[in-house]
Amino acid sequence: MLSTITSPTALRRLPASRLPALAAEIREFLVTQVARTGGHLGPNLGVVELTIALHRVFESPHDTIVFDTGHISYVHKLLTGRQDFSRLRSQGGLSGYPSRAESEHDVVENSHASTSLSWAEGIAIAHQLKGDRQRHTVAVIGDGALTGGMAWEALNNIAARKDLPLVVVVNDNERSYAPTTGGLAEHLSMLRTTQGYERVLSLGKRAISGAPVVGRPAFETLHGIKKGIKDIVAPQGLFEDLGIKYVGPVDGHDEHALEVALRQAKGYGSPVLVHVLTKKGKGYRPARQHADDQFHAVGVINPETGLPLEVSGRSWTDDFSDSMVALGQERDDVVALTAAMLIPVGLRDFSLKFPERVIDVGIAEQHAVTMAAGLAYAGLHPVVAIYSTFLNRAFDQLLMDCALHRAGVTFVLDRAGVTGSDGASHNGMWDMTLANVVPGLHLAAPRDGEQIELALRRSVDITDAPSVIRFAKGNPPAPIPALEQHGTVDVLHGPGEEHVDTLVVAVGSMVPTALGVAARLEDAGRTVRVVDPVWALPVGADVVQEARRADQVVVIEDNLVSGGVGSAITLALQQAGATAPVRPFGIPKEFLDHASRGQVLAAIGLTPDAIAQALLA
Amino acid sequence: MLSTITSPTALRRLPASRLPALAAEIREFLVTQVARTGGHLGPNLGVVELTIALHRVFESPHDTIVFDTGHISYVHKLLTGRQDFSRLRSQGGLSGYPSRAESEHDVVENSHASTSLSWAEGIAIAHQLKGDRQRHTVAVIGDGALTGGMAWEALNNIAARKDLPLVVVVNDNERSYAPTTGGLAEHLSMLRTTQGYERVLSLGKRAISGAPVVGRPAFETLHGIKKGIKDIVAPQGLFEDLGIKYVGPVDGHDEHALEVALRQAKGYGSPVLVHVLTKKGKGYRPARQHADDQFHAVGVINPETGLPLEVSGRSWTDDFSDSMVALGQERDDVVALTAAMLIPVGLRDFSLKFPERVIDVGIAEQHAVTMAAGLAYAGLHPVVAIYSTFLNRAFDQLLMDCALHRAGVTFVLDRAGVTGSDGASHNGMWDMTLANVVPGLHLAAPRDGEQIELALRRSVDITDAPSVIRFAKGNPPAPIPALEQHGTVDVLHGPGEEHVDTLVVAVGSMVPTALGVAARLEDAGRTVRVVDPVWALPVGADVVQEARRADQVVVIEDNLVSGGVGSAITLALQQAGATAPVRPFGIPKEFLDHASRGQVLAAIGLTPDAIAQALLA
Repeated sequence: MLSTITSPTALRRLPASRLPALAAEIREFLVTQVARTGGHLGPNLGVVELTIALHRVFESPHDTIVFDTGHISYVHKLLTGRQDFSRLRSQGGLSGYPSRAESEHDVVENSHASTSLSWAEGIAIAHQLKGDRQRHTVAVIGDGALTGGMAWEALNNIAARKDLPLVVVVNDNERSYAPTTGGLAEHLSMLRTTQGYERVLSLGKRAISGAPVVGRPAFETLHGIKKGIKDIVAPQGLFEDLGIKYVGPVDGHDEHALEVALRQAKGYGSPVLVHVLTKKGKGYRPARQHADDQFHAVGVINPETGLPLEVSGRSWTDDFSDSMVALGQERDDVVALTAAMLIPVGLRDFSLKFPERVIDVGIAEQHAVTMAAGLAYAGLHPVVAIYSTFLNRAFDQLLMDCALHRAGVTFVLDRAGVTGSDGASHNGMWDMTLANVVPGLHLAAPRDGEQIELALRRSVDITDAPSVIRFAKGNPPAPIPALEQHGTVDVLHGPGEEHVDTLVVAVGSMVPTALGVAARLEDAGRTVRVVDPVWALPVGADVVQEARRADQVVVIEDNLVSGGVGSAITLALQQAGATAPVRPFGIPKEFLDHASRGQVLAAIGLTPDAIAQALLA
Repeated sequence: MLSTITSPTALRRLPASRLPALAAEIREFLVTQVARTGGHLGPNLGVVELTIALHRVFESPHDTIVFDTGHISYVHKLLTGRQDFSRLRSQGGLSGYPSRAESEHDVVENSHASTSLSWAEGIAIAHQLKGDRQRHTVAVIGDGALTGGMAWEALNNIAARKDLPLVVVVNDNERSYAPTTGGLAEHLSMLRTTQGYERVLSLGKRAISGAPVVGRPAFETLHGIKKGIKDIVAPQGLFEDLGIKYVGPVDGHDEHALEVALRQAKGYGSPVLVHVLTKKGKGYRPARQHADDQFHAVGVINPETGLPLEVSGRSWTDDFSDSMVALGQERDDVVALTAAMLIPVGLRDFSLKFPERVIDVGIAEQHAVTMAAGLAYAGLHPVVAIYSTFLNRAFDQLLMDCALHRAGVTFVLDRAGVTGSDGASHNGMWDMTLANVVPGLHLAAPRDGEQIELALRRSVDITDAPSVIRFAKGNPPAPIPALEQHGTVDVLHGPGEEHVDTLVVAVGSMVPTALGVAARLEDAGRTVRVVDPVWALPVGADVVQEARRADQVVVIEDNLVSGGVGSAITLALQQAGATAPVRPFGIPKEFLDHASRGQVLAAIGLTPDAIAQALLA
């Protein structure tokens, strides 16, 4: 049946009686397909009925449906004409997120959380200003994403626009990656369990289930009854206090109930929040039984058992994890912060050993970073462990709270550089440029697992400035020993102090690439020295000194070439009056399509062959 | 009497009967002193009693008092031993914000809003982890700052820490700079007017006013009574829904009531929010009668009349304001967004002409930027007008929502470059570095008022990428005509195409400085051409072409020298194989102390003399 649903129009024509079978078919499709490619399996299994209901009640693309953190768009893709999942998240295949290039039904491609309400308010206001009153706007946001400050900013604004036809669907599965934390989670939990209120709602549903769209007066009456009873049987609720109509909770796996609630909301004419209860991994036992994250994202798995079929080996994250545990045992002033990603950032082991010294703030990077400044002020040493791409969310806090106040805070940035299959918004290609403009900040890009531990130990001794340690996704190389140390610089190839044709400065995970470049240049008769500055920012005097012993300086980094380490070294040489020209290699200033990490690096010329060729040209 | 209060200890010894006289003396001091120097007069007049009460109930620095957006710290300074306001905000004088260098009573220097709850939670948790249960932490936050997403992220976390002795004081004066907007403002308004509840509170106050600190059981009893009645006479309220105890509303000009409420909160042992109602400009008629902003910040004024004594002349902002009005008349798709600063960013006139096309989102830069992407998606052209320093708050949204989605959004950054008297966190010295890493983004730095209009007109025709227009604080120079145009580059000095010793690339407000440098170099026998790239980023091919006709390239910009226009031009020359060395002049990577703009520029060597001297050395 799924193959006959080539558009939302076809879906709307389907009799309601066929929908449970369709939902079952979609779940089977998702498990079978995503098992082969990897992807965000659990979240999508949870929104099958919700997505069907959305596309039956609203008419995309005339109505706009915005998915927050677009990894829950798989079902949406299936229902809007995209059913070839064979190359999901691979080069040339479907994106793992919405993609405007794929479909007119896709709006927001950004994988960063908590943005959908802002997008939706903007779109709805534009329709209103243009006098187009027939178009509806829907934002689908998880309960986890509601912990992000942007969502609050948007709700505060939306609440005051009483005439805006905007529907906020809260997909409440009690978690983002990790279980949702904080007062909001407790409040949602309270709303979930107000059975008396739910009975009232189901009464309302029966009364109106025949009508396709309930007009405002009818809804007001129903709502009036409901509110009156609700005030007795249950608290009024956060959202209504703020001024947003609340409908729910609705069983997110009851297609009929969802359609009724969404039609109520659609017809209301004011902002409405529909609280939908879903289960992540719904209908797939291995996911439901997976306590950590209910298969938030999987690699290639056996669809029967859910067990991984690829051995991924020891990752950079694992090395950080071990270093943190060792450090935690030695120093009781070290505390760890995560923004709703305890396990992916490598804090699970630390949290098992030192549960009171781990703080999960929810999807709230800004808060995490400023709270870290507070923790440091009061004598602790916080380690903020986040993905590189999410540091962009807290640049102001890094600058104004940590650096301005000389706070000894360590930032550990995982997934720095090119990450690949998650696409443009997951690449960690801006962090070194940001770090390079923060006064006082020290940044290390370890080249291997041993260097992570050394860098971490040094960083927690820095008490008067923030420090950053950044490493890539995937597996680090075997330890790469330094042949010599020239001051703070590790010489990895071409020891000695004699003048060379080319000095290659290699940053972090680009060290093996740099060594490959050196081999190719030497094959062409050049003399080459490869150094790792270890602490790449600020640029040390020893790097300038090395540059004085070379005809040219090549810098290789997996950060944007604009404003990164190459740029910093260039500036240091300009200011020191050193004349060796600098050839910076890094990521060009463009958004990178999804593909494997190796494919992306090849496409942008960050390979030994491409760099050597450019230098020899 | 004020001069005898040399510390909070002295304040605590003062009999309560003397406090009204002290408050009056402080207000007189503030009006007299700030009239002479300029400063944040209105906000500080509003917190006289509140600050007295805070320092009588809490024991700073053993207890920590964090002021959000530290311009309300003048009274705090007076009560902690700093009573020489003669050089407030001037070089060598008191900072207009808290300053750790000034006093151990100062904690957070950052002038960006909504951070205090995160700081306070971090400090309180650190004390708790270290086993120090006797230290209290207080955050004083305005109702306006509560609209910022960081505050929500923090409240959500604080709510879940039932054992944290943390007091949140909401200084509710119904505005930040502008009146507070959104659902939260309406909710606070509702809380303010629940008279029945207030009567219950005053009953509670009478019952316990003798006790210095009310223990938790006694408070629970009182609170229980209060809550029971409140649930009948008034809704429960947003903060209690979230899980934070609410005390209030309290008259913020009733010192006794404030002390009672703060002592209740101090003794409670869990997070408590104390809702305090204050009046901005309290006790000073010219401020209270000033409808725009109640003297949020003033220059030098006549203390009797409140009228300005300095004529400030026509500002960059005025030129933008006029350009926006003209544009608005021609194009009905242009909409303007502000984050709680309608008048300071130059949108007042536009808002009077086109009220429906201005959106004030509150202190919510993240939301503003992403909402702008939504507005652009649906066919409008948004102009986001904010101070340069506050764009740092929305870097991720600029990158991931606007640029990734090729949204035609114009950013107008006022107060770019060195601003001066507001100190380190108000300088707009990072924006061009950020802009330089955003794929597709175009940035113009107009050199005069006429160029603002040209840039604005061009920017609203860019429909597939964000654009940025940035200008300085203060007065622009008289229009500086181009002698010739070399492609996209304006030649301002040294017309023709012959080779020169030095090409000076001048960015925006640095053009007069660059012309001064040229004069000095020519006096020393050099040949010089001065060009304005107009659209400075990305670096155009014509700039590279100009560089090929010079022995060296000098770039002068009022942005961090790291990663700015000088860095971008260097990279463009490196990638084009152009060999002329680049000498970049900009702001060094350090936080700049408060002083006048001219003093700061002199201190960092951004003057014609200093630059010419460096080049001739």
